[in-house]
Amino acid sequence: MFRNKMPRYEILSEDAMATLDKGWRRLITEIGVEFMDDRALDLFRKNGQKVEDNKVFLDPDFVLEQVAKAPREFDIQARNPENNVHIGGDAMAFSAVYGPPFVREGEVRRDATFDDFQRFAKLAQSFPVLDSAGGVVCEPNDTPLDSRHLDMIRALQTLTDKIYMGNVVSGVNAADTIAMSSILFGSREAIEETPATISLINCNSPLRWDDRMLEAQFEYSAANQAVVLTPFILMGAMSPVTIPAALVQQITEALSGIALSQLIRPGSPTVFGSFLSNIDMQSGSPTFGTPESGIGLLCTGQIARHFGLPFRTGGGLTSSQVPDAQAGYEALMTMMPTFLAGANWVMHSAGWLEGGLVAGFEKFIVDIELLQMLQHEFTPMEIDEASMAFDAHEEVGHGGHFLGAMHTMERFRTCFYRPLLSSSENYERWNRNGGLDTAARATKIYQDKLEAYEPPPLDDAIAAELDEYVTRRRAELGD
Amino acid sequence: MFRNKMPRYEILSEDAMATLDKGWRRLITEIGVEFMDDRALDLFRKNGQKVEDNKVFLDPDFVLEQVAKAPREFDIQARNPENNVHIGGDAMAFSAVYGPPFVREGEVRRDATFDDFQRFAKLAQSFPVLDSAGGVVCEPNDTPLDSRHLDMIRALQTLTDKIYMGNVVSGVNAADTIAMSSILFGSREAIEETPATISLINCNSPLRWDDRMLEAQFEYSAANQAVVLTPFILMGAMSPVTIPAALVQQITEALSGIALSQLIRPGSPTVFGSFLSNIDMQSGSPTFGTPESGIGLLCTGQIARHFGLPFRTGGGLTSSQVPDAQAGYEALMTMMPTFLAGANWVMHSAGWLEGGLVAGFEKFIVDIELLQMLQHEFTPMEIDEASMAFDAHEEVGHGGHFLGAMHTMERFRTCFYRPLLSSSENYERWNRNGGLDTAARATKIYQDKLEAYEPPPLDDAIAAELDEYVTRRRAELGD
Repeated sequence: MFRNKMPRYEILSEDAMATLDKGWRRLITEIGVEFMDDRALDLFRKNGQKVEDNKVFLDPDFVLEQVAKAPREFDIQARNPENNVHIGGDAMAFSAVYGPPFVREGEVRRDATFDDFQRFAKLAQSFPVLDSAGGVVCEPNDTPLDSRHLDMIRALQTLTDKIYMGNVVSGVNAADTIAMSSILFGSREAIEETPATISLINCNSPLRWDDRMLEAQFEYSAANQAVVLTPFILMGAMSPVTIPAALVQQITEALSGIALSQLIRPGSPTVFGSFLSNIDMQSGSPTFGTPESGIGLLCTGQIARHFGLPFRTGGGLTSSQVPDAQAGYEALMTMMPTFLAGANWVMHSAGWLEGGLVAGFEKFIVDIELLQMLQHEFTPMEIDEASMAFDAHEEVGHGGHFLGAMHTMERFRTCFYRPLLSSSENYERWNRNGGLDTAARATKIYQDKLEAYEPPPLDDAIAAELDEYVTRRRAELGD
Repeated sequence: MFRNKMPRYEILSEDAMATLDKGWRRLITEIGVEFMDDRALDLFRKNGQKVEDNKVFLDPDFVLEQVAKAPREFDIQARNPENNVHIGGDAMAFSAVYGPPFVREGEVRRDATFDDFQRFAKLAQSFPVLDSAGGVVCEPNDTPLDSRHLDMIRALQTLTDKIYMGNVVSGVNAADTIAMSSILFGSREAIEETPATISLINCNSPLRWDDRMLEAQFEYSAANQAVVLTPFILMGAMSPVTIPAALVQQITEALSGIALSQLIRPGSPTVFGSFLSNIDMQSGSPTFGTPESGIGLLCTGQIARHFGLPFRTGGGLTSSQVPDAQAGYEALMTMMPTFLAGANWVMHSAGWLEGGLVAGFEKFIVDIELLQMLQHEFTPMEIDEASMAFDAHEEVGHGGHFLGAMHTMERFRTCFYRPLLSSSENYERWNRNGGLDTAARATKIYQDKLEAYEPPPLDDAIAAELDEYVTRRRAELGD
């Protein structure tokens, strides 16, 4: 997996950090955080925190004590050990888009289906630059709602041999995820020893953790599975319009969620989450790939390191309806700061379109190209005597060219990044080849990849046991 | 104009910098640099440098002595003093694309004309984010070759009141630029006191300065006009394939050119130039917006600061044939590092398409959006008590929303960047409005801007004197 050994780009001064620190301490103490689950309230009360109705007024030092129990770095195991993922430090792991109810391929935008879900899972398996297909790559709207999670988890487990995200719609769905992971990895003990899933627990920002997400969190943290505690902030709607206020709120929400996981099971793996953008103040629409989200992203990295926590943020976000110029620049406007900040768990890394409502097949390929380019760019270069190429200058001389030089011949296959999607064909050749724009070329690439896809081998007995589990649970759930 | 008060992103260690330092010293001493102009050779010879044929073997310490005479920062005056430009320090100045023989508008790609040139000049005048239309915004192929520069300079002088770049095709053209600038600013003394032009002197890399460019350099530096000494490097063709070798060559070339300007006129304004990308090793095509160019750009900034020189690099470069997703992400892949590096003079900031062969009207608008976004993103935010918005939290409470909060109402007009081009319309509304992609929306924007364009006022006597000069010189040049 990719490790980012380049410097971090940090923009918050010590003074700024101290101001933010004062800010979250005041917010968590005086306004507090709502937890819509009695077990959570009981845990906080028992541990000496002031609870009123569903509000918990937290002592910031108590919160930091809990946060200190969270591992700074941890592993998540994949069924193919080569695809194990490390979360934290200089490791960066990338997963595909999460949550869209719609898909776009070419000119067609329509409801997502389970077939789409499977195709996206196969694409995620096909590109080494992705560490995971994620979880809900798109909503399989043609499958029954109550048992949909079983189909999705099984597809992620069987069509890919990478790590996957757990379902978080309810505690029941989380329990199913854990049970199916126990089957895949042999036992519950096996996944409790090294987590096999990472799951997204979203805050109902501002300052409220909802019941169903909390149920899922209880299941996962109790089973030592990783959870990503994520303030879901579109500034202007779910937080004040000023970035510092959003950052302070984000700290308050993320740390309160992490503290809860540490009360559920001390030492359980947690990630400081961030989903931070803003709305358009004229229309109220969410906007992505904005300057504000870029700034927020850079600050989030610095803040997470300040608390010694791995963090999640970023991705290839865009508001654009189609995989056009805006989709290209907005995706990079979040993805580049993601690398500059060194995010550890990067969701929505491939396929995000139309503010996250659409999973785009062509956009998926655009994002893969961006990821590959950025991984190349954020790999330190070697600077040694050979790289100076003095001999090549002696060979080529003034005004000459280096195409045939020995130094070039020895390196030409690997010296530069080789694009997957980008074209540098001259106009005549490009025209002869159909004059295809980037989106049209992307269509061909994903179709070829799907054609070439081969399922990673899986033990028949395990596959049968998973099938059995799904069949039984589907019946129990009445679908 | 824009000042970049954010931190610089630096990726070269002290060791790396020392290695590069050793590298250029060896290259400039042992391989030397060719100057295809006797006056240049004489100047170097007279100043104790070893000259053989056209090759000058330079003493690196002598070079640094000359470089130390170059101003670290300087001003360029515009005929509208509000548009004066500062070069150096944290100032960043942006000019439009330079050099394309073709234009693209919508689906049409064709030879550029003088009408195109004028329209691009008007667009550059219309967007405050650009400090200059540049010089050869596109080649006006329908005007006579020998006198074309007169038309271009007059168009830049009259259609814009911003700074402009001088013509560098020959010494004669440079002299015309200087004469016309003397008319516009009242006298040659007026422009010698504060430069009124900045001109691009390209190296015929590797390690050769050609005669016509040198002639232009002699004119400009003698008249105290700014010159941008620019190694023109596509790695693999004009330099070895390794980035460190390209950097060492770039230092050698840029410093040798700057040293010459300082010999021509000590203290004359010079800029450390960089045009650094790579070729595709399969096809030999130039490629832009690559990871390699991003790395080169970041290093170039650090190197220029190491020598205490303002530097030129970056822009919205792309190999893409059309303003599509690739054009969007490649443009940002150079423009974002340009801001991270804090480049002082940014050419090709708007309109670059198809490896610089095409000036694109739609791409121009895409780039304006990128510039505006990045200027917003690279403006430090205020972090104070009011920005914490504690009152807003008291007002809104848990799970509420901030749209109507007092803190929001007071700030909603200015709190976020407002896009020019990007759309965050929901799908239904976007579809009702024609389902236009980014390029199609850009068409409407540039057409509206041209419609609304008004020429900046110019004194009739000066306009008449410029016309007279152009008419006389055109006749002398036989066109």
